[in-house]
Amino acid sequence: MSRLLLQNHGAMYRTYTCTYNAAAMSTMAILPQSTPTQKLTQRLRRSQLEKKCPSSSLPFSTKASLTIDRKMATQAKCLQLENINPNFITMEYAVRGPLVIRAGEIEKELQKGVKKPFDQVIRANIGDCHAMGQQPVTFLRQLLTLTFEPRLLDSPDYPDDVKERARLILSDCHGHSVGSYTDSAGLEVVRRQVAEYIERRDGGVASDWQNIYLTGGASPGIKSILSLIHCQVNGKTPGVMVPIPQYPLYSATIAEYGMVKVDYYLDEESGWSLNREELQRSFDENKKHCNPRALVVINPGNPTGQVLTRDNIVEIIKFAHDNQLLLLADEVYQDNVYDKNSKFYSFKKVMYEMGEPYRNQELVSFLSTSKGYLGECGIRGGYMEVLNLCPQVKAMLTKSITAALCSTTAGQVAVSALVNPPKPGEPSYERFISEKNATLSALKERAELVHKTLSGFEGYKVNPVQGAMYVFPQIEIPPKAIAAAKAKNMAPDAFYAFELLESSGICIVPGSGFGQRPGTYHFRSTILPQTDKLKLMMEKFRVFHAEFMKKYK
Amino acid sequence: MSRLLLQNHGAMYRTYTCTYNAAAMSTMAILPQSTPTQKLTQRLRRSQLEKKCPSSSLPFSTKASLTIDRKMATQAKCLQLENINPNFITMEYAVRGPLVIRAGEIEKELQKGVKKPFDQVIRANIGDCHAMGQQPVTFLRQLLTLTFEPRLLDSPDYPDDVKERARLILSDCHGHSVGSYTDSAGLEVVRRQVAEYIERRDGGVASDWQNIYLTGGASPGIKSILSLIHCQVNGKTPGVMVPIPQYPLYSATIAEYGMVKVDYYLDEESGWSLNREELQRSFDENKKHCNPRALVVINPGNPTGQVLTRDNIVEIIKFAHDNQLLLLADEVYQDNVYDKNSKFYSFKKVMYEMGEPYRNQELVSFLSTSKGYLGECGIRGGYMEVLNLCPQVKAMLTKSITAALCSTTAGQVAVSALVNPPKPGEPSYERFISEKNATLSALKERAELVHKTLSGFEGYKVNPVQGAMYVFPQIEIPPKAIAAAKAKNMAPDAFYAFELLESSGICIVPGSGFGQRPGTYHFRSTILPQTDKLKLMMEKFRVFHAEFMKKYK
Repeated sequence: MSRLLLQNHGAMYRTYTCTYNAAAMSTMAILPQSTPTQKLTQRLRRSQLEKKCPSSSLPFSTKASLTIDRKMATQAKCLQLENINPNFITMEYAVRGPLVIRAGEIEKELQKGVKKPFDQVIRANIGDCHAMGQQPVTFLRQLLTLTFEPRLLDSPDYPDDVKERARLILSDCHGHSVGSYTDSAGLEVVRRQVAEYIERRDGGVASDWQNIYLTGGASPGIKSILSLIHCQVNGKTPGVMVPIPQYPLYSATIAEYGMVKVDYYLDEESGWSLNREELQRSFDENKKHCNPRALVVINPGNPTGQVLTRDNIVEIIKFAHDNQLLLLADEVYQDNVYDKNSKFYSFKKVMYEMGEPYRNQELVSFLSTSKGYLGECGIRGGYMEVLNLCPQVKAMLTKSITAALCSTTAGQVAVSALVNPPKPGEPSYERFISEKNATLSALKERAELVHKTLSGFEGYKVNPVQGAMYVFPQIEIPPKAIAAAKAKNMAPDAFYAFELLESSGICIVPGSGFGQRPGTYHFRSTILPQTDKLKLMMEKFRVFHAEFMKKYK
Repeated sequence: MSRLLLQNHGAMYRTYTCTYNAAAMSTMAILPQSTPTQKLTQRLRRSQLEKKCPSSSLPFSTKASLTIDRKMATQAKCLQLENINPNFITMEYAVRGPLVIRAGEIEKELQKGVKKPFDQVIRANIGDCHAMGQQPVTFLRQLLTLTFEPRLLDSPDYPDDVKERARLILSDCHGHSVGSYTDSAGLEVVRRQVAEYIERRDGGVASDWQNIYLTGGASPGIKSILSLIHCQVNGKTPGVMVPIPQYPLYSATIAEYGMVKVDYYLDEESGWSLNREELQRSFDENKKHCNPRALVVINPGNPTGQVLTRDNIVEIIKFAHDNQLLLLADEVYQDNVYDKNSKFYSFKKVMYEMGEPYRNQELVSFLSTSKGYLGECGIRGGYMEVLNLCPQVKAMLTKSITAALCSTTAGQVAVSALVNPPKPGEPSYERFISEKNATLSALKERAELVHKTLSGFEGYKVNPVQGAMYVFPQIEIPPKAIAAAKAKNMAPDAFYAFELLESSGICIVPGSGFGQRPGTYHFRSTILPQTDKLKLMMEKFRVFHAEFMKKYK
């Protein structure tokens, strides 16, 4: 029995005790960070492989009207755990892990009238803005509407600047329809708009539209770059340097591709900054057993919420250059900066300003329509800017995305809305800017509220939320609680998070899902609930934590 | 110099002669099918690797205002052809290959006023319906509009049945917004609609909505299943049985994942049917050096346009079962059947009707909103139904798509439109059914027109277009033309297709991009141009072919 089964067999979570029993057996999902994953995976697979899945143990789905012969056949299934992609077994994605599955079950229980000490689940586990009540930006939705329903281009209900933008996009679609395939890298008109946006953002540093690839959110772009570097060199597996804590898309993808995750620790004491010594230590120690090829930096940070200083970025670029690493700059939160002393600097701009030889550094930067002030997660829009790649390598990258045809046109239109918003004086401007500012100032207010509230909790150490959408506090878990977690074979922070969920309905993600220094415990919570709900959440959290401490201290 | 470079260096194609010179060196793109790809790849890589890409040979993109020091640095790029994913170098995707790139250049030349024997390029290379003038189905676009712009739910301009459907979808979106993430497998309400659709289609054979995964078109689903089976067993690489000719997504993905493509030939003489002996021959010959795990069947066929008979499907299911193969049924053209004696049978229905043990066969079936009568290629909607998988394996599949978050909500709405169209008596029904029928009958008319016209060409053997959107004629290429192609190191069918493009503007895909029996030559053309344009295209084609034969016979 394992997490693997839990994913599809929610019933096992039906009681709190059962949750823990199931979770206890789920060694991979919420494992203590010090345990080597590989050994666990092997152990897990061995135990699973003992039970073969016979051909007819899974009868064809039926209806009452159709009788099925359920006699056991002897032939085993074609696909068994031991003969499928082993990387699928290793990979994990904590943001949608067992806690989130349990949260979904609790919601269904509440709907059925099951009595709980709370009346709703607060999903603070995922950066899903609209799900938490953020309103869509009118301009973006109008642009989508006019491109999908072009007969509305004659309607007096839509502003002229939006119509003009919609016409421009449609003029670049084959057959003037968003229903036709675009080039694999996206519509040229949108790629040009992205390049112009980047130039404005970076104070005139040039951007070539042919370096822009439109992607379905940032994730597919990140995955395609990680796949690109997957090559054994001198018998060594490629390694990817990722921050700890990190966004689990990276760990999941690295595991999926069978590469080596090379951890470097962010410095919690100095506001989750990076330092070159730590990067070098990680590189040197890991290059013995793998071939580090790329360095991932997330700025503003997820889950850590820091905004890197320019000096810090300079250091990182030098390090990447000196060690011949491809730099992946995950800059999807570039519009989410709240701290008045922080400013977003793009890696590209800093690299350019550093001059030779650094400006020739190979860099890929990612942006998405899912974050910022748009928060359009479901539409799947994004882009990557690919800089200084060898042309042959870039051609291979282009070729590799060709068979996937193209990213969704809805996402491409959303990207256009992001990079080419209404300008002052245009009919849509006032409404657009007021919606944008309202969303960003509400996020800023919540960033401060969450930081202030949690900082007052016993045993919490909380860095300010300078940017992004998350807080990542360090929590002191009393020895009695650690023992209780251990008895259930759970990581202490997962234990804490499960207790919080079951007693208050608040769903967060334990720090072990992102990585943390051994012996420390954290969690990630979004700052996305609407302010009233967030205040309620903070109060519930306070009560829970006080009781937890009373119980286990 | 290679195809690889050509992809980004369109300038090399600037003259006709140059096109051929470049293409001649492009051994991989249009290689004669009998040449082993692996040797070529090695040769290609060796020649490319001689030229390292120095760090500053690719200066940071610049504007006049920014001066760049262009002195050569000595450090090489992090990413070179020899240290990137070797599978990216091997993979090819002919539907967007060098002919299509050249077609794009010709279009730009025409825009600039360059004199040509034609005034437009006819893109018959890709099943891109709207690009060829097919009109979107109003119902689908209205449903998209109402879900993206919910304030229009109060507008009298939209029919009530569409509003009701939009409200139902929004009620299943977190925060009632298509801007929020859905479950990784898609919105429950749409998955349930898909299951109901499949039950109706298959005359009541049950479908469980939890076996439905919504995907961004069919391609990502196919890729995730092929990735799932990627496992070395007893030191053998997994093999995937694909029809020859096949849709190049399969060959590209198999190459990308480093698996073995196990070819089985469709029988051209009997209308591109499959026969069990050929499947067995292919399996037996290939199992010596790889481990065949899956069998891909495309029905209706792409590029071949056949519709499999029920008897043929029975044979295939028996073969897959007896040889323990996962069955991948690519059924994206299931609504595109034109021949009055043909009927679409789903593999699932046939398998079910065959009873034990066949109904327990592991099967994945794919459908897309890009084909059929919708033709919404750019929106990226699709689903797969996954049957009889071992629950642990299914859990792994689910987990593997989790990190990709979800497919686009626009695509999910489009799937809803596909599987839950207006019913008789509902306000949208009349318009919907008339649009649907108009599209399908126009396609049927064109299928017949293309077949009839091409059948009259000297040296052509053309199977009827029973379904899908393509014709795949066998053409006799005269020895003199073969010699001319050989002199340019081109496959004869690629030579033919390039001559056609340059002299008439018609863009087709040579048979070598799909695979064909050695010594035979084919091409794939869509039947998508609007009827008037298609007639014009057929006439141009006739003139070209007559002249080609005159020149080379």
